[in-house]
Amino acid sequence: MRQIDSFIEIAKNYKAIFFDSFGVFKNYDGVIPGAEKTLNKLRNEGIDYIILTNDASKSPEMLAKDYLKLGYTNVPADKFVSSGMLAKDFIKNKLTSGKIAYLGTEQSASYITNHKMSAIPVEELNFNNEALNSIKALVFLDDEGFHWKRSINNTVNLLRVRNIPVIVANTDLIYPVNENDIAVASGAIADLVEKIVGKHFIHFGKPDVQIFNYAYEHINPNRLYDKKDILMVGDTLTTDIIGANKFGIDTALVLTGNTIPDQAEFMIKTLGIIPDYICESISS
Amino acid sequence: MRQIDSFIEIAKNYKAIFFDSFGVFKNYDGVIPGAEKTLNKLRNEGIDYIILTNDASKSPEMLAKDYLKLGYTNVPADKFVSSGMLAKDFIKNKLTSGKIAYLGTEQSASYITNHKMSAIPVEELNFNNEALNSIKALVFLDDEGFHWKRSINNTVNLLRVRNIPVIVANTDLIYPVNENDIAVASGAIADLVEKIVGKHFIHFGKPDVQIFNYAYEHINPNRLYDKKDILMVGDTLTTDIIGANKFGIDTALVLTGNTIPDQAEFMIKTLGIIPDYICESISS
Amino acid sequence: MRQIDSFIEIAKNYKAIFFDSFGVFKNYDGVIPGAEKTLNKLRNEGIDYIILTNDASKSPEMLAKDYLKLGYTNVPADKFVSSGMLAKDFIKNKLTSGKIAYLGTEQSASYITNHKMSAIPVEELNFNNEALNSIKALVFLDDEGFHWKRSINNTVNLLRVRNIPVIVANTDLIYPVNENDIAVASGAIADLVEKIVGKHFIHFGKPDVQIFNYAYEHINPNRLYDKKDILMVGDTLTTDIIGANKFGIDTALVLTGNTIPDQAEFMIKTLGIIPDYICESISS
Amino acid sequence: MRQIDSFIEIAKNYKAIFFDSFGVFKNYDGVIPGAEKTLNKLRNEGIDYIILTNDASKSPEMLAKDYLKLGYTNVPADKFVSSGMLAKDFIKNKLTSGKIAYLGTEQSASYITNHKMSAIPVEELNFNNEALNSIKALVFLDDEGFHWKRSINNTVNLLRVRNIPVIVANTDLIYPVNENDIAVASGAIADLVEKIVGKHFIHFGKPDVQIFNYAYEHINPNRLYDKKDILMVGDTLTTDIIGANKFGIDTALVLTGNTIPDQAEFMIKTLGIIPDYICESISS
Repeated sequence: MRQIDSFIEIAKNYKAIFFDSFGVFKNYDGVIPGAEKTLNKLRNEGIDYIILTNDASKSPEMLAKDYLKLGYTNVPADKFVSSGMLAKDFIKNKLTSGKIAYLGTEQSASYITNHKMSAIPVEELNFNNEALNSIKALVFLDDEGFHWKRSINNTVNLLRVRNIPVIVANTDLIYPVNENDIAVASGAIADLVEKIVGKHFIHFGKPDVQIFNYAYEHINPNRLYDKKDILMVGDTLTTDIIGANKFGIDTALVLTGNTIPDQAEFMIKTLGIIPDYICESISS
Repeated sequence: MRQIDSFIEIAKNYKAIFFDSFGVFKNYDGVIPGAEKTLNKLRNEGIDYIILTNDASKSPEMLAKDYLKLGYTNVPADKFVSSGMLAKDFIKNKLTSGKIAYLGTEQSASYITNHKMSAIPVEELNFNNEALNSIKALVFLDDEGFHWKRSINNTVNLLRVRNIPVIVANTDLIYPVNENDIAVASGAIADLVEKIVGKHFIHFGKPDVQIFNYAYEHINPNRLYDKKDILMVGDTLTTDIIGANKFGIDTALVLTGNTIPDQAEFMIKTLGIIPDYICESISS
Repeated sequence: MRQIDSFIEIAKNYKAIFFDSFGVFKNYDGVIPGAEKTLNKLRNEGIDYIILTNDASKSPEMLAKDYLKLGYTNVPADKFVSSGMLAKDFIKNKLTSGKIAYLGTEQSASYITNHKMSAIPVEELNFNNEALNSIKALVFLDDEGFHWKRSINNTVNLLRVRNIPVIVANTDLIYPVNENDIAVASGAIADLVEKIVGKHFIHFGKPDVQIFNYAYEHINPNRLYDKKDILMVGDTLTTDIIGANKFGIDTALVLTGNTIPDQAEFMIKTLGIIPDYICESISS
Repeated sequence: MRQIDSFIEIAKNYKAIFFDSFGVFKNYDGVIPGAEKTLNKLRNEGIDYIILTNDASKSPEMLAKDYLKLGYTNVPADKFVSSGMLAKDFIKNKLTSGKIAYLGTEQSASYITNHKMSAIPVEELNFNNEALNSIKALVFLDDEGFHWKRSINNTVNLLRVRNIPVIVANTDLIYPVNENDIAVASGAIADLVEKIVGKHFIHFGKPDVQIFNYAYEHINPNRLYDKKDILMVGDTLTTDIIGANKFGIDTALVLTGNTIPDQAEFMIKTLGIIPDYICESISS
């Protein structure tokens, strides 16, 4: 039986903490009790932090507003790094003009576009039209905001005629909606399409290391400390822990989300994904 | 370069022919020219036949009506074997009471039910109700007839609380809708759900050999001839040809559907799926 | 908690039993206690049986000899159906001349060859020679009898120059060698090669239904009874039980092999593979 | 038909070039004609470069010696970044004591070890010994240097009793050995084991972005320029090009290796992996 550690005690050994969001700061019931107090302690100790989330539906400003609504009074927008930010960056760096077809909400599309690239819902594409040539990329942003059947079929047919980069801005397969139910996330829809069209999509988000590296550059632009000084904290072995292990930073599993206390040992052994620490919660 | 054979000449060496439907007798433009004449020749030669289709949306009677509408005047219901028939059989043999949740049209559901088992669309399930316990199986029948988002999410959540057999009555990933466009078929939706819930579904339809065996029993109940006397004819290497090869019967690829003449050689080599014959069409 | 049934009582309701071999009649320690007595009871009740095994290393006669050596005094060769028999049949029906390259023991190769087709170990192939054109098929038979590195590399290179059918005569990924250790089986080697060359191989063995159908034809050639009269008994959910469920016969899981008593419920739920009965052993 | 560009002309627009090694600087015949001249031109223009390779069998010093032997007179060790360097780093950062079991040559093992961690070939493990507890990680380094059957079976059994991180230091599935033949690489062996044991391994090497990021830090530690100033040049769409696209730098496909001129267009379209430029070779 592995030892359960106090998060507060462990955290003191690091200069920065990377946190997952859902299952660490909040769950379907609301906030994780004591989490804000922990953030205050970190601030007092001079420990910096970032919240990393596989979410491409919102800007950092919106994510910060959600946290404020939940009762976190002091988590500004620059504390968030999302897979949507990586998608936005990719579009800015690699595309210069034309339109981006998307599956998601209007809000998610407005975040990833820029002055050179506008966005169009994939279900509004006109297949009998020369305008199809102006589509320069396709992005999976969210599972909401579109008619699944029509949009998925349009996506498949678009990729048969246009050879364009396809970006999966949220690779999660599912997300929890309440204590009992889950919903299929846009990563699963993207996987369905990728399998059918047989092309290679570009996936952003944990467990892929790129989001960890993005957060590392974001929090530590002047390289005042190195990877040894950072701890990743998450509730999910297959995204938070394996990704951070590979990135080369220490990892702590918390038991307030996907990994329930009774199964933690078993899951660690079955999956072969080994956190450096196990903590009951970030308030422990 | 491989030899192109005359289908009529080859067929004479067999006592029965298994045909695929789409791409062999018909395509998006209507009937394949000359196909009915070929059927007449087979009848005159005393060669029996069966049409094998990965279709779980219709009864054999409905499939026969569709053929009549297309202009095939003499293809009765008992000439069809569909993956839906295997699903219907499974339900009859393995289930004794309760309800079957389904994704598909009402018509497809009415075909697979029987006097012991009724059917309910998965999107009408009430999750706050004891009635969920009466659900004894789940069936993927068709990509039409339901709201994708609601139904797929309901399906995932149903399978988290009920450990029941899941039947995929049409394993195709896509189907053609016109000369340019394809649509996502129910097999692809089933694959998405299977991956998310991590359970093993029961899949019926080509290339799996069970449908070939079903047709073999159907056409030759008294074992008057054996596998050497049967030829499978299809337009798709990965379903018709590989399945029939494995089942142990001879195979002929026709070039009136998925495999276009220019690419036949290349596809055979790339996929490693080798038909015994290649024919332009069943009218050749 | 599911009910544990007496195998002897259940068996009486059937006219024939299909048994898995390893984990049902024997394990690394030797015979399962009481198993021979059960066979005698079946004989007394007039219940027929077949032992189905994913084994392509031995002829039925050799399998019978192994059982005799273990102490089963009355299990003749015709009581065995192996995936090797399906491979042998495929070769007999679909190939007419030339050589079969193989990975396995000489003994396994001698079983699947016939007067028209001889066999050559894949590591003895001469790649600078016209003789390569005489190779008409490749078969994965066993994990023993060849130098893995040389043979696997030769196999990959053979399939790059020769477009021939590839038969996987044992699809198992692993097999137990003693109480603690397992070994990689030929199915896993075949999967490695299939992934690299990107071609479609022909796989025989449980859970695929073809071996169940072969046993059904073998035991019941005159159709004196039907699928409802047959019970499949096995220790492995992902091969024995799912395959027999799909084939349409009843299933009983025994707890003397891969599925240990403590985990049976959990495995059934996690995998979604549901046996009709659970029995401690075939002696219970 | 896409335009073929002059590499020399394109290169002038960048401050640094990332090159793949095999298929760009050399192939089975030796050096790509004119490649050294190109390196000289880059030096004259003040353009820096790095050679990125999925190779964990050699230290940078050895890679430099190989280049010297080929005739490249001025490519020092610090111009190489290999997936082996990432594995070495992971071991240094995440492991503190004990032994590393490995599959590979002694030379490859000596490169990744350090003063705290020694290495032991997986085939020399003693399973009846307490010493097994000192094994703290497993590394796939090379396809050479070990007995495949014994080592692969030992690896599977080790991972059943020890829950330790597993590092795949070369994710390639194959590599070319001469104009006709390929060999199975250690990435394919790792995939076989990963599938059997069902655990999550840690994979280093293209197309994963971590190696691109490592090279970026290596060549540009003081951030004098950014991603827009770097061009990746490679012969393989599925590793060099897709990885660099995702990393966010420009890409040029050369036709001196895996992607042959006749098939470049077709491969780009089929795979959906789109380089910014296509060049005949780095000498063009």
